[in-house]
Amino acid sequence: MYTLGNIANIIDAELIGDATTKISGLASIDKAQKAQLSYVASDKHKPDLMRSNAGAVIITKSLIADCPTNALVVENVYLAFAKITHYFKQPAIQIGGIHPDAKINSENIANNCTIAKQVVIGKNCTISANTVIEQNVVIGDNALIQPNVTILQGCTIGNNVVISAGAVIGSEGFGNALDSKGHWHTIAHLGNVIIGNDVTIGANTVIDRGTLDDTQVCDGVRLDNLVHIAHNVILGKDSAIAAGVTIGGSATLGERCQIGGGAVIASHMYLSDDTIVTGSSTVDKNLNKGHYTGFTSISLHSDWKRNQMWLLKLNKIARYLNIKLKNLVSKQ
Amino acid sequence: MYTLGNIANIIDAELIGDATTKISGLASIDKAQKAQLSYVASDKHKPDLMRSNAGAVIITKSLIADCPTNALVVENVYLAFAKITHYFKQPAIQIGGIHPDAKINSENIANNCTIAKQVVIGKNCTISANTVIEQNVVIGDNALIQPNVTILQGCTIGNNVVISAGAVIGSEGFGNALDSKGHWHTIAHLGNVIIGNDVTIGANTVIDRGTLDDTQVCDGVRLDNLVHIAHNVILGKDSAIAAGVTIGGSATLGERCQIGGGAVIASHMYLSDDTIVTGSSTVDKNLNKGHYTGFTSISLHSDWKRNQMWLLKLNKIARYLNIKLKNLVSKQ
Amino acid sequence: MYTLGNIANIIDAELIGDATTKISGLASIDKAQKAQLSYVASDKHKPDLMRSNAGAVIITKSLIADCPTNALVVENVYLAFAKITHYFKQPAIQIGGIHPDAKINSENIANNCTIAKQVVIGKNCTISANTVIEQNVVIGDNALIQPNVTILQGCTIGNNVVISAGAVIGSEGFGNALDSKGHWHTIAHLGNVIIGNDVTIGANTVIDRGTLDDTQVCDGVRLDNLVHIAHNVILGKDSAIAAGVTIGGSATLGERCQIGGGAVIASHMYLSDDTIVTGSSTVDKNLNKGHYTGFTSISLHSDWKRNQMWLLKLNKIARYLNIKLKNLVSKQ
Repeated sequence: MYTLGNIANIIDAELIGDATTKISGLASIDKAQKAQLSYVASDKHKPDLMRSNAGAVIITKSLIADCPTNALVVENVYLAFAKITHYFKQPAIQIGGIHPDAKINSENIANNCTIAKQVVIGKNCTISANTVIEQNVVIGDNALIQPNVTILQGCTIGNNVVISAGAVIGSEGFGNALDSKGHWHTIAHLGNVIIGNDVTIGANTVIDRGTLDDTQVCDGVRLDNLVHIAHNVILGKDSAIAAGVTIGGSATLGERCQIGGGAVIASHMYLSDDTIVTGSSTVDKNLNKGHYTGFTSISLHSDWKRNQMWLLKLNKIARYLNIKLKNLVSKQ
Repeated sequence: MYTLGNIANIIDAELIGDATTKISGLASIDKAQKAQLSYVASDKHKPDLMRSNAGAVIITKSLIADCPTNALVVENVYLAFAKITHYFKQPAIQIGGIHPDAKINSENIANNCTIAKQVVIGKNCTISANTVIEQNVVIGDNALIQPNVTILQGCTIGNNVVISAGAVIGSEGFGNALDSKGHWHTIAHLGNVIIGNDVTIGANTVIDRGTLDDTQVCDGVRLDNLVHIAHNVILGKDSAIAAGVTIGGSATLGERCQIGGGAVIASHMYLSDDTIVTGSSTVDKNLNKGHYTGFTSISLHSDWKRNQMWLLKLNKIARYLNIKLKNLVSKQ
Repeated sequence: MYTLGNIANIIDAELIGDATTKISGLASIDKAQKAQLSYVASDKHKPDLMRSNAGAVIITKSLIADCPTNALVVENVYLAFAKITHYFKQPAIQIGGIHPDAKINSENIANNCTIAKQVVIGKNCTISANTVIEQNVVIGDNALIQPNVTILQGCTIGNNVVISAGAVIGSEGFGNALDSKGHWHTIAHLGNVIIGNDVTIGANTVIDRGTLDDTQVCDGVRLDNLVHIAHNVILGKDSAIAAGVTIGGSATLGERCQIGGGAVIASHMYLSDDTIVTGSSTVDKNLNKGHYTGFTSISLHSDWKRNQMWLLKLNKIARYLNIKLKNLVSKQ
């Protein structure tokens, strides 16, 4: 709990408003309530700012007139936001073994795993050797957690979930703010990962927690090995993601999507229900229901070289042909 | 051990045959013996069905006439198969530490690793801290198993093998059957991973076990970091796979293949001996000996945008040019 | 410490020079000093050989005249080098728990992690459960090392570094020499990983140690999850690498580079300061400052199929059009 006065000091902001206002947490601009701080880093979110219920908002000078609540005015909003996140992040508790305050309703717990305080584990779960579960994680019934898994603080896992060896749930998102000298400042990610029922997660797969809201893996999702799910991604029910797929921050997949192995889905993409993406494709636009592909078919290296030479000139060739053909037609 | 009567109940099948027949395991249609159950999910395997020695086969109505043995008739064969696999899967034993029934012929075993019962470890091996080895794993002589490795039940590892930190051997394959409501049902993978002699496996690499048969990594293979080897893949002798490669289910690589970093090999592909694939390529067809490539060369983003615009219209352009040229010629 | 006589025996070389010369280590040809052995496997490095200060160099017959020091003459230089590296590699010490000879200046150390002898850990660090730190690792102040991390022998980590769960620092590079029978011989990697200050490393990311020199991650670098950094890579200050990126051996990135998720950077590439690469691109040439892209945009699978058909014939089409147009023009 910090006052706005404290926060203004920490992020070196000009406070327009009440310095005694108490702030208990951070939230995104459309969700923040009275005791919460938010930020608006781009004019795109001006409408959200104007109707925000936040206790205070970090903004630039240009948005003061549009701010209906306490304003913390800075030059670099995203950087100020990055700095303040760390004040609301709980450190993980570092004690090996099974904490007496963990509520474990299952028998099948390897004796060398680490389960922190206030963890809740449902009935009929298996927690395998060397698995580490940080504080405040909640796991439903019938989970199978394989060896060497790490589940970081505050994540929630439904019933009948399988998490394969080496997977990491709740790692920090890759959010960093640049300062004027070109140095990165890490954003502490305050959201969690929410995993529904009947989900399976492959070996060495990683799911990042959300920045302020949660990363969501809905019921029935299947994730293969070595998959990356970035912060704030939403994976709709019964979607299946094959091995080696990289999904960028805030991408949203609908229900029953199928993504082939090695595909890359760019940040902020939106895929409708029942979208199918062939393996190795790059999703660089939003997709409606359908089957999509985007990669270069393989060929002999010597042929590939010659074809790529032309591909890299395709725009010039097309323009040249157009002119050439026009000339020919006009001369006929 | 289940009777066919039990199994018919479990998978809700109509049994044509002897309900008292005892089934001790599952096998693929071309390999199943008298005490084994198999399945045929597509007409493609009708010839295998007709000469199968299986004790029983899960099929649809349409194949009853071609089934030379006990038939379990269902609507969705793959789903019925997925359900029954779980009845033949041994649960992993969850006790930390080194089990007294493990046969360990080496000294260099970290005291905080987990080695389950009936594991056999040869001479002169090093098993590093926090490594977990499940029941019935067999490891030859001179192995170096680095920290935080997970080797799941029943896998076999030859002599002189190096497994780098964080690697996972024997994870479940990504096999799931869809039901009529669009929900996935996991297939329990009953095959193992068989690793030959003189193999090295990179950090955080994952090798899935086979569905019914085994995933095979032959002698002398080199796997770099963060490689995904799916279920039932066969990697021929002395093949080398660089980092970040994703190899889909049932792909087969011959001997001395070389696959560059970040390549994707689609499921079921077949690569002959001595096939070379440039890094970042997508293997979407079977390949004979040779050097192959398939990706888009990098260029300035602005050029790429213009060239891609035409690439996405290449079919239309080619047809248009063809017509245009024909017209020009006919008018001459 | 071996004499050149010993080494000549081990690698089956003809020694031209003094068999009693003592060799304490290996180094690359441009850096090797009097007590060090080096190798030159290609004529490209002849100038370096000619001015080398090495105590001895492994070469082929053809370079004898250019060798200013003791020569170890073999047929396959790279294979001889691979063999001798193993004689200079220290085995990791395999004892669980925290070694009494580790110098740990922080309180927040999980009781089930493994810290080997001669490890130095600075002030105010957190070392989480199940983390394994091999001998001679040095970690600065304020490090946060999450659970299940592996840091292999001799790596150096600066101040204010975050290493996320499951990451592996200092794994062996993917360097292998082929013998005349087509078998691979592993090179023991004798370099380390040097990580600067203010670096963050994502979950399940892997950074290989250098062959002879070190892999370098400079101050302020940001690495996301599941990134592969190969041996001898140099990542310049404040560069940011998103998830799933694969960077090949000896690639060098300048300062403030930004590499999008899923990109592949081929071995030996050089990227200038401030180079930006869009996610999923393949970097197959050296790049100067600028924004670069190289992948196939996604489209409907049916369209993709038709367009790829033409792409694979682009060279033939371009040549055909050229001839066709020339004919048309000449007939006018």
